[in-house]
Amino acid sequence: MSVAKFFDYVEAHQSDFIDRLRKAVEIPSVSSEAARRQDVVRMSEFLVNELEALGASVETRDVGMQKMHDGTTLKLPPVVLATYGNDPAKKTVLVYGHYDVQPALKEDGWNTDPFTLVEDEEGRLLGRGSTDDKGPILGWLNVIEAHKALGLELPVNLKMCFEGMEESGSEGLDDLILLEAKKYFADVDVVCISDNYWLGTTKPCLTYGLRGVSYFHLSIKGPGRDLHSGVFGGTVHEPMTDLFAVMSNLVAPNGKILIPGIYDQVAPLTEEEERTYDNLAFQMHELHSAVGSEVNIYDSERDILQHRWRYPSLSIHGVEGAFYNAGDKTVVPAKVIGKFSIRSVPDMEPEKITELVKKHIESEFAKLNSKNTLNIECSHAGKPWFATPNHWNYVAAAKAVEKVFNVKPDMTREGGSIPVTLSFQDALNKNVLLLPMGRGDDGAHSINEKLDRSNYIQGIKLLGTYLHEIAEIKADEN
Amino acid sequence: MSVAKFFDYVEAHQSDFIDRLRKAVEIPSVSSEAARRQDVVRMSEFLVNELEALGASVETRDVGMQKMHDGTTLKLPPVVLATYGNDPAKKTVLVYGHYDVQPALKEDGWNTDPFTLVEDEEGRLLGRGSTDDKGPILGWLNVIEAHKALGLELPVNLKMCFEGMEESGSEGLDDLILLEAKKYFADVDVVCISDNYWLGTTKPCLTYGLRGVSYFHLSIKGPGRDLHSGVFGGTVHEPMTDLFAVMSNLVAPNGKILIPGIYDQVAPLTEEEERTYDNLAFQMHELHSAVGSEVNIYDSERDILQHRWRYPSLSIHGVEGAFYNAGDKTVVPAKVIGKFSIRSVPDMEPEKITELVKKHIESEFAKLNSKNTLNIECSHAGKPWFATPNHWNYVAAAKAVEKVFNVKPDMTREGGSIPVTLSFQDALNKNVLLLPMGRGDDGAHSINEKLDRSNYIQGIKLLGTYLHEIAEIKADEN
Repeated sequence: MSVAKFFDYVEAHQSDFIDRLRKAVEIPSVSSEAARRQDVVRMSEFLVNELEALGASVETRDVGMQKMHDGTTLKLPPVVLATYGNDPAKKTVLVYGHYDVQPALKEDGWNTDPFTLVEDEEGRLLGRGSTDDKGPILGWLNVIEAHKALGLELPVNLKMCFEGMEESGSEGLDDLILLEAKKYFADVDVVCISDNYWLGTTKPCLTYGLRGVSYFHLSIKGPGRDLHSGVFGGTVHEPMTDLFAVMSNLVAPNGKILIPGIYDQVAPLTEEEERTYDNLAFQMHELHSAVGSEVNIYDSERDILQHRWRYPSLSIHGVEGAFYNAGDKTVVPAKVIGKFSIRSVPDMEPEKITELVKKHIESEFAKLNSKNTLNIECSHAGKPWFATPNHWNYVAAAKAVEKVFNVKPDMTREGGSIPVTLSFQDALNKNVLLLPMGRGDDGAHSINEKLDRSNYIQGIKLLGTYLHEIAEIKADEN
Repeated sequence: MSVAKFFDYVEAHQSDFIDRLRKAVEIPSVSSEAARRQDVVRMSEFLVNELEALGASVETRDVGMQKMHDGTTLKLPPVVLATYGNDPAKKTVLVYGHYDVQPALKEDGWNTDPFTLVEDEEGRLLGRGSTDDKGPILGWLNVIEAHKALGLELPVNLKMCFEGMEESGSEGLDDLILLEAKKYFADVDVVCISDNYWLGTTKPCLTYGLRGVSYFHLSIKGPGRDLHSGVFGGTVHEPMTDLFAVMSNLVAPNGKILIPGIYDQVAPLTEEEERTYDNLAFQMHELHSAVGSEVNIYDSERDILQHRWRYPSLSIHGVEGAFYNAGDKTVVPAKVIGKFSIRSVPDMEPEKITELVKKHIESEFAKLNSKNTLNIECSHAGKPWFATPNHWNYVAAAKAVEKVFNVKPDMTREGGSIPVTLSFQDALNKNVLLLPMGRGDDGAHSINEKLDRSNYIQGIKLLGTYLHEIAEIKADEN
């Protein structure tokens, strides 16, 4: 098949695809609000209906109950599993997306009603969920529709996994992935997730790495109760003094982590990797705009991106138990908990990070000769994710980008985490590709979230072409 | 006059004096609660009636309006000024006390109704305001009553200043003191304030010093908004990192202040002063009990008290603008304000303290080479107070203690502040004596506040005898 026919169909049916997105955006499937849970379920039903109408075989999976803060329980929205095509001669691609969205209120500062898709003069499709992640999941449906309308078979077997709790910690999903790894997902050859963004606004990218995160609670206690600094100041060991003494030895103002051994675990930067930073579509003014000021540690885009993507960082988030309001209060807090986290990169292991952190902190605390007591705990840890970017999954995706956009994609990583990426990779032991549809300025979790019309339409072409390239490429060991 | 007759009268009329205290405790004169303001005013009327019945000449002074948090205004309770005796041949003593109290609810954990005076089996008079400060102010009234009943003149002219806002920042009082310094208070020779406590539970004391306090806000800002640590960690200067780097250089875990020059201002410890620490009624277990654990920096009572009273201290109270809740949040705060204060002692001056703090902090911050910006401000400052403890005011009080208790009083200072002390000293330029009635364990601001019967009764004898010793002592230049 020539992709030209497919491209023509997509161009000719833009309005239909935008209509489908309009219907999806109108369902306020906010997973974090109990009162909206019925809308999340309604969104799953919308997807099921659309998929069945396209001829996919669809199942919904109950993933249990959610415990709410007020002690009540709420049924989790189902995970929608769908299959299109079941030819043993074809490769099988698993695609993941989520049909729930972030909260949104007009009063938050939206220029338009967040649950009405509006196209502005610049061709931006404004609406909650437009880019995160309803546009991308409907992209897969649109690919099926186009092929069906053209009387063409899909070149691969497509398995789809769409969840409704991504914006609320993907509750229930990991268990399902593990359960189905050797069942529903047994034939999967590669995984593709379209739920992140281009680095900037002009050039597509393939994303092959995410940092992990290890979060720590450092608690120091001494006095049996909060004390008055007038009566006790100068006579007792104050937990806040100790906390500042210890936590000032975690990271230097230039971002260098001061914990011995941490950098020993960081994979060295190879010349090959260094070259991937040569032509990335990212400029310093984009960082300044995102940060809202010019407090960048490094002066080159290359250094900024390397320190966002492939070097670890340590941030101090706050202190629990101390005075935090405006004004003055002369309290000596009895127990304080310093919060900090380390963004980890290959080849750092959470267990080793925790071991090094504990050793360093206990050694620094011992130097203080304080009678207070210290406890350090890792409250949660997620591993970094790194996919081989020259795997055929990536090579196929890069070819698809070139066919649609006439440009080689940026090869990017991200500084944050998308935990489901690692869940699929670990459970299925298959290569995972992050193939974004939207731009870096889409404002996924902000007011006025948008997906540019061109990103949606070209994105549909990209997802379809990617499946064709997957079908054609030699699936070597790479 | 022989004090023996006075002592006998006080012993014989204990019930009358306790009845007067009972009536006062029954008026819930909580100055911090708007709904109780009428009770505070009622308490002032009670005092006026009692004083007039005793033959004092009484005035109430309107000190203006209080601005409430909700924007409304509330009339401040009056300051009660009273004079008993006006003989130019006699010395004039000004006594100060307050008739308002801390809030109290049975539900807070009181064993008895807080606004009903109850005497328990151990002779403790339980009730809100019993020791802070209704017992002491009624002590002066009881002294007048005893003399009147015995047909005796007071040996001095007594001026009284009783306020109703002490537990709420003494609003309006400073202006009145300044206004009346050369008028109502013009003839005052010495001032006596009975509004603090014995060091322990067994031995009376005279208090001649209080620490001052300088409170600082150290703000550091950089990013234009709070950032996600995954996306920006490692690439921008984080205000929290800088804050910990700077504030860890303020005080060592052993309590030593690290700001150059701070100790240069501290008056040296003379041999004479050192001797005043020889026989103080204070034991380490009392500190442990008050602190609720054994995190004392020093092992001797002498060192503990010297560092509470006559050396400065620095406490870190908290951070505004950072994450402070339970749980995990991966925020990079855009602007944070570290709060700390320095307890100051003679001869430290607030202006010099601020100058040294600023210089040190700016120098430490400069070392960081951060692109963030720092601002340091002193939000409020109160000077330390120190009275010459061998002034005849103190000598007279010490003689009175010996006559009533057969023991030399402890000469004490306190670590906290009682701002009105300095207000009187500065406005009147007269010696101020703190002459406590209650014990160190009275729980002035806690549940189950009490004044021991013996402290109340012996306290009345003490206040009366003090006036006689004042009358008899030679008022030298000391």
